[in-house]
Amino acid sequence: MAQRVELISVGEELLIGKTVNTNANWIAKRITSLGLRLRRITTVGDVVEEVAEVVREALKRRPKYVIVTGGLGPTFDDKTLEGIAAGLETSLELDEEALRMVKAKYCQYVKEGRMREFEMTTYRIKMAKLPKGSKPLPNPLGTAPGVKIEKEDTTIFALPGVPSEMKAIFEESLVPLFKEAAGDAVFFEASLYVYGIGESALAPLIDLVMRDNPYVYIKSHPKGAEKIPHIELHFSTTTGDSRTARERLSKAISHISELINEKGGTVRATERR
Amino acid sequence: MAQRVELISVGEELLIGKTVNTNANWIAKRITSLGLRLRRITTVGDVVEEVAEVVREALKRRPKYVIVTGGLGPTFDDKTLEGIAAGLETSLELDEEALRMVKAKYCQYVKEGRMREFEMTTYRIKMAKLPKGSKPLPNPLGTAPGVKIEKEDTTIFALPGVPSEMKAIFEESLVPLFKEAAGDAVFFEASLYVYGIGESALAPLIDLVMRDNPYVYIKSHPKGAEKIPHIELHFSTTTGDSRTARERLSKAISHISELINEKGGTVRATERR
Repeated sequence: MAQRVELISVGEELLIGKTVNTNANWIAKRITSLGLRLRRITTVGDVVEEVAEVVREALKRRPKYVIVTGGLGPTFDDKTLEGIAAGLETSLELDEEALRMVKAKYCQYVKEGRMREFEMTTYRIKMAKLPKGSKPLPNPLGTAPGVKIEKEDTTIFALPGVPSEMKAIFEESLVPLFKEAAGDAVFFEASLYVYGIGESALAPLIDLVMRDNPYVYIKSHPKGAEKIPHIELHFSTTTGDSRTARERLSKAISHISELINEKGGTVRATERR
Repeated sequence: MAQRVELISVGEELLIGKTVNTNANWIAKRITSLGLRLRRITTVGDVVEEVAEVVREALKRRPKYVIVTGGLGPTFDDKTLEGIAAGLETSLELDEEALRMVKAKYCQYVKEGRMREFEMTTYRIKMAKLPKGSKPLPNPLGTAPGVKIEKEDTTIFALPGVPSEMKAIFEESLVPLFKEAAGDAVFFEASLYVYGIGESALAPLIDLVMRDNPYVYIKSHPKGAEKIPHIELHFSTTTGDSRTARERLSKAISHISELINEKGGTVRATERR
């Protein structure tokens, strides 16, 4: 069984619809392709008690990993670390290693002539105040370090909301751990496009094929209203062996293609636009 | 205080990163512009117990509305209504009005020559099995009706995951209720683009302006790494009177623009690419 992961997205911009949560989509894809299972995504606002509540709830479900994105910067509304600390019933404290990371970034900006000088204001020091027991993770593309905290069987990661910084820390510090946790498991998928037959007529065929192929998950995605039948069938399986995966998927695909043809529908490997 | 709304997105495709949750973004924008407050978005898989759990959790926070999207169709993995019923500790039962709606759709398809004939299979009847006490909502663009259920002070809506169908039911059946619940409250927003000054230098200026303008919420969004300073400042306020909104926003914007200029930064009303 693949390891459970939960994602917490923090940011008012997501709740007012100013920003599409593309971070969640990127993380979902990456987690899945690494052979782990993302089972819940929760978006909350920049409010300490809301972040704390959702961290507490996630921990109760005992996932292997919790990833929190957004709210690590220097402004007043960057409240994620305070929220995580509250959720863990601990407090923030200045982390010397994180402070060195933040200072080193500003020194670098001065050296490169991007800033004339800098001062370690309370706003900049804030980025080095981490929940007790945290380990800072280097941020190759920005000033706010990522954060790693262990709580019983769960490891919590906090990453910045800026996509480039989030991805850089994810690849550098999280992926090696995730690969180890996943072992050999890898996620394989394929799609088939079905024309000339509606979703409700397809439903019993999917049931039949899934009964015969217990390791393949099939999900139908209507791409138009049912009156213009056009459905994507998505096949997926998780296994450590790509040959087994190919065999499983192709067996399910041939089986359902046959059944669809019998019902007067047609299948295509690519989408007709 | 604006009324609290929560959104629950159901679908494995969101958790494996196959689909970007654009429904959530559309609903967030719409809810906010109607003067209500979306406070949480939870994405879970096509699993009865997971949907039930998140419905139970949402109800505990006593929101005015809970919107659930996805999983109303005819296939085996459309489990949302079963999950909602479990969360409400009730069961599914055939709803005669919903059954008439589903049948009428297929009759229409036959009349229009889109189908030759139809049979009310168990898969099609499934779309008319609603949690006890529900009211079906007409779906102008598809076969699966939406669903409305009241539980104490909360009204739960279940909408299809197909964006066009979700939006059509939302506009037709939800918006009139939301407008009434919001009263006069409307959300107003504006953006300002800041160049030549970093986020950590901007942070104390935002603090100052928000202290002087308690009804305006200001959030900074770094658009590049801090080494290429370019930050969007987003200003928002909720009020029933557009003149008050304009005055609030323009006062906060002039104030912060002055402070930014003093610090050597520049502001623009549009983004420089």
